[in-house]
Amino acid sequence: MAGSGEEAATAAVVQNKKVVLRRHVTGFPTEDDMEITVGTTEQRVPAGLTAVLIKNLYLSCDPWMRGRMSKHDDGANPVSASDFVIGEAMVNYGVGKVIDSTHPEFIAGDLVWGMSGWEEYTLVTQPESLHKINHADLPLSYYTGILGMPGLTAYAGFTQVARPNKGDFVFVSAASGAVGQVVGQLAKIAGCYVVGSAGSDEKVSLLKTKFGYDDAFNYKSEIDLSAALKRCLPDGIDIYFDNVGGTTLDAALLHMRHGGRVAVCGMISQYNLEERDGLRNLFCIIPKSIRVEGFNVSRFFHLYARFEEEMAGYIKDRKVAVVEDVVEGIESAPAALIGLFSGKNVGKQLVAIARA
Amino acid sequence: MAGSGEEAATAAVVQNKKVVLRRHVTGFPTEDDMEITVGTTEQRVPAGLTAVLIKNLYLSCDPWMRGRMSKHDDGANPVSASDFVIGEAMVNYGVGKVIDSTHPEFIAGDLVWGMSGWEEYTLVTQPESLHKINHADLPLSYYTGILGMPGLTAYAGFTQVARPNKGDFVFVSAASGAVGQVVGQLAKIAGCYVVGSAGSDEKVSLLKTKFGYDDAFNYKSEIDLSAALKRCLPDGIDIYFDNVGGTTLDAALLHMRHGGRVAVCGMISQYNLEERDGLRNLFCIIPKSIRVEGFNVSRFFHLYARFEEEMAGYIKDRKVAVVEDVVEGIESAPAALIGLFSGKNVGKQLVAIARA
Repeated sequence: MAGSGEEAATAAVVQNKKVVLRRHVTGFPTEDDMEITVGTTEQRVPAGLTAVLIKNLYLSCDPWMRGRMSKHDDGANPVSASDFVIGEAMVNYGVGKVIDSTHPEFIAGDLVWGMSGWEEYTLVTQPESLHKINHADLPLSYYTGILGMPGLTAYAGFTQVARPNKGDFVFVSAASGAVGQVVGQLAKIAGCYVVGSAGSDEKVSLLKTKFGYDDAFNYKSEIDLSAALKRCLPDGIDIYFDNVGGTTLDAALLHMRHGGRVAVCGMISQYNLEERDGLRNLFCIIPKSIRVEGFNVSRFFHLYARFEEEMAGYIKDRKVAVVEDVVEGIESAPAALIGLFSGKNVGKQLVAIARA
Repeated sequence: MAGSGEEAATAAVVQNKKVVLRRHVTGFPTEDDMEITVGTTEQRVPAGLTAVLIKNLYLSCDPWMRGRMSKHDDGANPVSASDFVIGEAMVNYGVGKVIDSTHPEFIAGDLVWGMSGWEEYTLVTQPESLHKINHADLPLSYYTGILGMPGLTAYAGFTQVARPNKGDFVFVSAASGAVGQVVGQLAKIAGCYVVGSAGSDEKVSLLKTKFGYDDAFNYKSEIDLSAALKRCLPDGIDIYFDNVGGTTLDAALLHMRHGGRVAVCGMISQYNLEERDGLRNLFCIIPKSIRVEGFNVSRFFHLYARFEEEMAGYIKDRKVAVVEDVVEGIESAPAALIGLFSGKNVGKQLVAIARA
């Protein structure tokens, strides 16, 4: 069995910087809600514990983290995960390298992705949640995005929830983001007509030139979102892949075609509001027999192996492009996370904290 | 072939009272928006026409008629049907007797239900939409309700859209209405725990004593709909069969269980509002993987024959009860229709205009 946990010899102790939550958040989070603390970590799994010690290489910044930054006294955390604990390292998906392991499926040197801490070293006590990286010839950072949770979210949401047909008219919001960029490209592979919305002209350009969207618009410069949809999708929408909720969802509902599907993946426009926007157009789903289905990637991890092979193939065959927004150093993580909520990131936002 | 349309002999001409729309409606409709006019009808199908002349026996009052009472210049009628024409008889489902027919499938004396006019006699020029009544031993008025469009709506919406499992916690709004009373009883037959909401203590009593609901509440006397749902369904809701939309739908979304289904059949609370209520709780569908699906009975008419036999069997075996609110005479039709929107009706609202 791998691992040195049962040995009495001392292991090196190294510095471990962490991003910890200073206070639970109401409304828009700020960098000041987090701080960097410095602790130490012994470079092995403590005796008697079945666990994996990971050196974190890439941290993923994902919108769903916002839900865990608030306090939910009733246990009703909107993302079905526990609230972050004040003073402890925040938690999210990441890519790392195994330093030590007492779990039979992992050995030192393994490259993995999965739930880890926002810190330099994490002791993972539930290693079942880690995935070994099968395509280390691709950039490892891809396992925070197109080959990790956001990629699987896009794949499962599009193929299993939205269920595309060739020729469908597809609309994707936050279309250049970690999930959106994958959905749009999968939709093109499936033979759909795809329109995306994003929050800057730079991103709109990226949608058309890099990701193959048939058309795109900058929602921040449109006076009337419904008119923008009518212009880009005059025959209506068969699939709306919703990453933003709010006024974009409300406008899209007006343009859904008979039998249309709204795959509701996220509502980033709403996460920081104390009172959410009211949706007024849901009535449209009755005469047009529209299905609006929320989903959470957690129920689709059984598809991961199939997805990883398929997506790695697309990347290697240059059938899909990847755009990442990489910041360097764990000190940059709070600002990178906050930037998501104003759309500062261009593509998948991640933090590189070590290269090997 | 039946029918006297090709004969030259004259047929009797009789008086034909109609309910016509006086003006297109904005906001709440009133009786004054309709009027009774008196015309005449020749008692046979005109020469050269393939049609069926019906003597109307029962007119059905249904909430969806509201959508056709407004003017939609853009053709975007929310009920996917044409706007009613000012000065012409209004149109809806009804039960009638064939007086004359030039269509091969119908002969004088046939009892039918289907789309007809709000008038004493209607020339049906698309007889394919009529259904022959196979259980004339049951009250014919049932074919405006439990054995007609509302019954099929309940059956298809519950079995095909909501897809119940034994033991599911089911919530039904407008639970004593034409659709709701059938959904609740089908849910009991399917082995579910069923809670209904209605707008009077009388109706709440009916739900528990007549229709077998496990629990019920009067939404008009609850200060907090969410608290009422928590009280009646402390473990949450697997299926919400929505007939009302608005604040009831918004409250129900908060209580949906993981994998829950909201079958959206109608939104009667919203039909007369110039600005619809904003829904703020749709975000719940993401972490809980909830499906919200609108449907229209029109796509389920292929199930009608199976449904009619099954439901007639339940009625004859006294497994389901029927409560109708019957007013007499075509002059009573406008008030009966208007009453739907304030919940004046107790059970299925219909108008008896002739007995044979």
